[in-house]
Amino acid sequence: MGKKEVIVLKDLLGTNKKIAAEIREELRKRGILAVNLMSSPGSGKTSLLEKLADLIKPRARMAVIEGDIETERDAERIRSRGIPAWQITTGGACHLEAKMIGRILPEAEPDIDLLFIENVGNLVCPASYELGEHLRCVLLSTPEGDDKPKKYPKAFTTSDCLILTKADLLPYLPFDVERVKKEALELNPKLEIFLTSAVRGDGLHELVDYFFSERRKLQAPGA
Amino acid sequence: MGKKEVIVLKDLLGTNKKIAAEIREELRKRGILAVNLMSSPGSGKTSLLEKLADLIKPRARMAVIEGDIETERDAERIRSRGIPAWQITTGGACHLEAKMIGRILPEAEPDIDLLFIENVGNLVCPASYELGEHLRCVLLSTPEGDDKPKKYPKAFTTSDCLILTKADLLPYLPFDVERVKKEALELNPKLEIFLTSAVRGDGLHELVDYFFSERRKLQAPGA
Repeated sequence: MGKKEVIVLKDLLGTNKKIAAEIREELRKRGILAVNLMSSPGSGKTSLLEKLADLIKPRARMAVIEGDIETERDAERIRSRGIPAWQITTGGACHLEAKMIGRILPEAEPDIDLLFIENVGNLVCPASYELGEHLRCVLLSTPEGDDKPKKYPKAFTTSDCLILTKADLLPYLPFDVERVKKEALELNPKLEIFLTSAVRGDGLHELVDYFFSERRKLQAPGA
Repeated sequence: MGKKEVIVLKDLLGTNKKIAAEIREELRKRGILAVNLMSSPGSGKTSLLEKLADLIKPRARMAVIEGDIETERDAERIRSRGIPAWQITTGGACHLEAKMIGRILPEAEPDIDLLFIENVGNLVCPASYELGEHLRCVLLSTPEGDDKPKKYPKAFTTSDCLILTKADLLPYLPFDVERVKKEALELNPKLEIFLTSAVRGDGLHELVDYFFSERRKLQAPGA
């Protein structure tokens, strides 16, 4: 990159971080845990959210912000589960930014417990932008291959949790779950790792427990 | 984006386009067809190149430039097939640019027939950067889902060919090949579409024929 580009990028990231911090604090005060889901296109973010919706809906109030380059397809899928969803279409941009979330919050219902933000499908760029989330989760689907953490490290080093998806396809793929876990933990020893299948339901209850547990930490005195 | 960011981006894309045009013309003079492969992480770009190498090697001289954020893993896989490969690690950047290709070309053997450039795994950003390629191919793997063309349109509207990969997984997935073809052709009626499986070999001979046929067009008088 040229000098001018580097300066613009620094300005952009600095401003974004400041807006993200404000959003994070506002959501905490309102008792809302915000979760930023990042992954490649087609790793199963929306399918996971559909299944989580079925488990969370009887217990708590959930809402979703969908980030996509084009189309309202993902928000429509979530709404059809009876969950409020806002679609951000970036019109070409490769990631969400905090200011896009900030524009939606005033119109969001005040009584949400869990707010999921599905980022644009991209394992690279979203990792550089905080959105005001309290938890950041990277998804990796089994068909993408077990060599991905070290090839796309930033999404893994900046996340709190790794959700391996499409476990139901393991019998048909050369995907070594232990290799991925080892490599991901070498990059980030604090990662919580879940092996899931939206089709069969594997690991979804554990994941829901994790989100509720993290929400309780948010509400603890001094959080 | 702010005004300053837009201006920097325009400068960058303009400069990139100029370098790409020079590379494209130099490669044409040298009789080298350059193919830019773009897709999400884990769509099977490297696996496809490994299998194409086995088919192309007896007939012609092939070389590969591998673009990744980190690691030499993909170049090592290609070299182990007896094919020259150069690794570009972008160190965080989400796409290749023409100047990166320009730096490699002087050290590349002069007697190459087909040069494949495997872009960084990212279905968004690489679509905005020409690399000096004569053919641009977007890969979409069946596990990524059949709703992707209209969600990530630029990779499809700017490509010459769409390579559907992992056809061997079709029995286990809700992926409608006809839906994808229809949607992709609505975006770009000129797309050549191939349904392939690197595991089973489906569609690979057709794809090799296509590359050789495009190379002959390059050499035709007035090309």
